[in-house]
Amino acid sequence: MPSIDFRTLIDVLGTVAFAVSGASHAIEKKLDIFGVLIIAFVTSIGGGTLRDMLLGDLPVNWLRNELIIGVILGAALLTVFIKGLEQKIPNTLFLFDSLGLGLFTLVGMDKGFDAGFPPGICIALGTITACFGGVIRDVLLNQVPLIFHKEIYASACIAGGSLLLLLQHLHVKPTLAEIICIISIVCIRIVAVKYKLTLLPIRETKHPS
Amino acid sequence: MPSIDFRTLIDVLGTVAFAVSGASHAIEKKLDIFGVLIIAFVTSIGGGTLRDMLLGDLPVNWLRNELIIGVILGAALLTVFIKGLEQKIPNTLFLFDSLGLGLFTLVGMDKGFDAGFPPGICIALGTITACFGGVIRDVLLNQVPLIFHKEIYASACIAGGSLLLLLQHLHVKPTLAEIICIISIVCIRIVAVKYKLTLLPIRETKHPS
Amino acid sequence: MPSIDFRTLIDVLGTVAFAVSGASHAIEKKLDIFGVLIIAFVTSIGGGTLRDMLLGDLPVNWLRNELIIGVILGAALLTVFIKGLEQKIPNTLFLFDSLGLGLFTLVGMDKGFDAGFPPGICIALGTITACFGGVIRDVLLNQVPLIFHKEIYASACIAGGSLLLLLQHLHVKPTLAEIICIISIVCIRIVAVKYKLTLLPIRETKHPS
Repeated sequence: MPSIDFRTLIDVLGTVAFAVSGASHAIEKKLDIFGVLIIAFVTSIGGGTLRDMLLGDLPVNWLRNELIIGVILGAALLTVFIKGLEQKIPNTLFLFDSLGLGLFTLVGMDKGFDAGFPPGICIALGTITACFGGVIRDVLLNQVPLIFHKEIYASACIAGGSLLLLLQHLHVKPTLAEIICIISIVCIRIVAVKYKLTLLPIRETKHPS
Repeated sequence: MPSIDFRTLIDVLGTVAFAVSGASHAIEKKLDIFGVLIIAFVTSIGGGTLRDMLLGDLPVNWLRNELIIGVILGAALLTVFIKGLEQKIPNTLFLFDSLGLGLFTLVGMDKGFDAGFPPGICIALGTITACFGGVIRDVLLNQVPLIFHKEIYASACIAGGSLLLLLQHLHVKPTLAEIICIISIVCIRIVAVKYKLTLLPIRETKHPS
Repeated sequence: MPSIDFRTLIDVLGTVAFAVSGASHAIEKKLDIFGVLIIAFVTSIGGGTLRDMLLGDLPVNWLRNELIIGVILGAALLTVFIKGLEQKIPNTLFLFDSLGLGLFTLVGMDKGFDAGFPPGICIALGTITACFGGVIRDVLLNQVPLIFHKEIYASACIAGGSLLLLLQHLHVKPTLAEIICIISIVCIRIVAVKYKLTLLPIRETKHPS
């Protein structure tokens, strides 16, 4: 029971962060209120929705989860009405976002374990859950998805997911392994952003020398 | 039986309008005939398809509905061959489009009622059915979806859908409530376009004063 | 058994070609390694995934097909590390790509036949399987899908699929009909590229004369 509460709490905090981030991007693009709400919504639930549509776990979860819908609408409206919310508490939001990234990865991987998929697929499902909301957000905002060329984001999920598999293999206690997985994703993300680490583009255009 | 015929008729008219609108957008973007047909198709059936994929009501309906496929192809080809069709009868098409908007909202909400979803979700399903064909069209044409920043469109569906819920709550006769819902959506859309109403972007960029 | 091997072989070759093509496009857009792998993946399996999501044949096939995942990752990494791979063996890749186009069309049509869909829908399913990986690739790379305005590609699938239906109607032996279908798609594609055939845009913008 405390474990469920803990998960729900992190889930809500991650959802808030993703919704605020989506709403901020949409406001920058000068969308109207409807557009902002949709983008906030898609950023929060897009990854899990794509995962469930690939798995056939339908209807998708948020259709029956009014808590999450309320949380997203609330967070998006706050972002709209508190001008510059995302600039006022950037560290808090960044922490939420990183926690969300870690937890959503875990949620996606758990779905894969439950359905008996091989390890690599479970990591893929975790990464899709955590990252593809942002991909769909960027597609709707008409830009190449950020995580394909600018940020260490999916890589953190893949690394954390691989660590979880390793810990399972070493028979570490499940709850402990899961917490380590989340913390590692959060840390990789924080270190990457702090030191401005990115994956290099495959080939730099060079002037002939 | 007459009720079914009435619905089928409006469904066909709405589909025609959505297909012509999609084809017109695609012709403007200088797509070839295949591209035009696909965009017409996606504009017409995209919203209902996304809804059914979220709900798990699969295979999606149009795979078994040859009438609708024929209607879409016919309407798209007419738009291709009658140069400027969309400019010649703009009022007729706008009326079709608005009727389609109303009916598709109702169809989506009905699906939600049948599956026992809460009221807010039913409105969301109706709005997705009516509006997301246009969203997918715009994504494929590489532009930010119009309904996120330019038009009162989804808002009309949400208002009409809320009205339907209110009328149901007041025990108004179902058919009457549904007709009022459709008419209200059509009227909101007509008034919005006539008086050039839009939702404002959340924050205007302002020069410092 | 030899028939299965032949199909698997062509499937793998087509997947390799689609993955290399996707990776090449992504490298051109200066994506990082994660972006390149995702685009390669989506180009290869996007069409079949969309088809299965429309049909409700879930979980989608590649979640249980580690061979195909390995083939895609291998082909994408090769493209990354062998600089200019796609320029070095363009004819080989073009042949793979055309073979893949033919086979994926056939795979999609077979799914339609098995589920008892009408002929037109089977052609549509074949075309979606063969072509929509490239459509999703282009959407993620933020450009109007190539096949909507530049290349004879989907048209080859539709022509080859129609030929297959005709041969079935004439009671040609199934295997023979399928081989003719694939060969016709490959030939149409080769002829179209060799002679730079395209479908014209619907209406050219003309200066008044």
